[in-house]
Amino acid sequence: MNPTIGTLMNHVSVRAFTEQPLSEEQVKLLVRAAQAASSASFQQAYSIIGVTDPALKTQMAELAGGQPFIAEGGHFFVFCADTYRHKQIAEAKNLDISPTIEGIDALLVGTIDATLAAQNLTVAAESMDLGVCYIGGVRDGIIDIADALHIPNHVVPVFGLAVGYPAERNEIKPRLPFDAVYHENRYNTDTLELVKGYDEETRLYYSKRNGQPSTRTWSDTAIGSLIRLPRSFMKEFLTGRGWAKH
Amino acid sequence: MNPTIGTLMNHVSVRAFTEQPLSEEQVKLLVRAAQAASSASFQQAYSIIGVTDPALKTQMAELAGGQPFIAEGGHFFVFCADTYRHKQIAEAKNLDISPTIEGIDALLVGTIDATLAAQNLTVAAESMDLGVCYIGGVRDGIIDIADALHIPNHVVPVFGLAVGYPAERNEIKPRLPFDAVYHENRYNTDTLELVKGYDEETRLYYSKRNGQPSTRTWSDTAIGSLIRLPRSFMKEFLTGRGWAKH
Repeated sequence: MNPTIGTLMNHVSVRAFTEQPLSEEQVKLLVRAAQAASSASFQQAYSIIGVTDPALKTQMAELAGGQPFIAEGGHFFVFCADTYRHKQIAEAKNLDISPTIEGIDALLVGTIDATLAAQNLTVAAESMDLGVCYIGGVRDGIIDIADALHIPNHVVPVFGLAVGYPAERNEIKPRLPFDAVYHENRYNTDTLELVKGYDEETRLYYSKRNGQPSTRTWSDTAIGSLIRLPRSFMKEFLTGRGWAKH
Repeated sequence: MNPTIGTLMNHVSVRAFTEQPLSEEQVKLLVRAAQAASSASFQQAYSIIGVTDPALKTQMAELAGGQPFIAEGGHFFVFCADTYRHKQIAEAKNLDISPTIEGIDALLVGTIDATLAAQNLTVAAESMDLGVCYIGGVRDGIIDIADALHIPNHVVPVFGLAVGYPAERNEIKPRLPFDAVYHENRYNTDTLELVKGYDEETRLYYSKRNGQPSTRTWSDTAIGSLIRLPRSFMKEFLTGRGWAKH
């Protein structure tokens, strides 16, 4: 295993940072690494908003599901799917790209582009011994966050990424068994036996992590969050801003 | 710049592979690296289908926008957003997660999870001197590809990834200027001047790459693909398979 793969395998989400901010050079290097990722049809249909203003950062932490560590250190990046620039350019050329950018596939394109960039930024950060945490909670507060960051139509925040110097690190969390995730030539619908063993493994992980007996398993956690977080406002938000209208 | 960041910066899409396939150990290592990525609420809402059967691989190459190099060497991975397993588990617990997994936010969750995993796989592959190419064209042929891979409802292919030994490599393609992609504290709607300089830079890149004078710029390419590829069947396909219904 080479050092790069070692970095990937060593990943944990960090939710406690020291107060040390990232330097301007670090931010530049991280964003350049993000930009080096692939992009669908090379559209580069994403943008990154760095939140550095302390009051705005605190507001983000509150709006993104109430996660104070976001405001506590390092740097907070908001990744957006973005076809705003493409629309500007097309209009200047008297071309109408609305049928494409207002369709649901364009939302996938922008989300994929933003995520490829974010994961490159993550790998770069971890190779520099920084810690990161993805903040899907940005979509809990998406309506107010979009306003607070002056985000126009055709741009949509898809998640945040908190990056900073780790104050503490959890142990690496076990993943689903290889054969439950990787299928060969045809999709295998019969993986529940594999999940049973994995649930035992994760029960042990959670009980160690919390330092107390726990009955929580991966299945409990995953299904629990699917019941709690329907984000039923999302469709209206997206269509109102020019996304996924058809 | 450390070697991991060097690997990220050195990325180009490879569209010509030697015939050498990946070994089983390589595939295992790559998928494990993919699994090490973050996952929204740790739902691991994705799956990976490796296409190794030669006839099936040729079919994929045809369906994914007619790109023969997909079938020519290495390994072809199809990344899927996947809540199939979650639905099975919830049903066994007599819980109904349909309001969440049938909403558009769940499509984002699964797409993000699949993409985080794919980019880890990409970085791992490139650190092993393999080359990759993302195949968004999987969504051009999504209806037939889903059938060919026996993909059930609540699973949707979001893109493919061809991985193999490079037969040739392009030069690194210049990206949009840093200030056009990275915004601080508020979204900057005024980046078209930056794009003008970038268009000159990409005109030069494309003319060198094709070894002939070219008038093609980034703007031309990006807008051109947005006009050509509306994928207007996507909404019906997704809703028919239990995604993005509301």
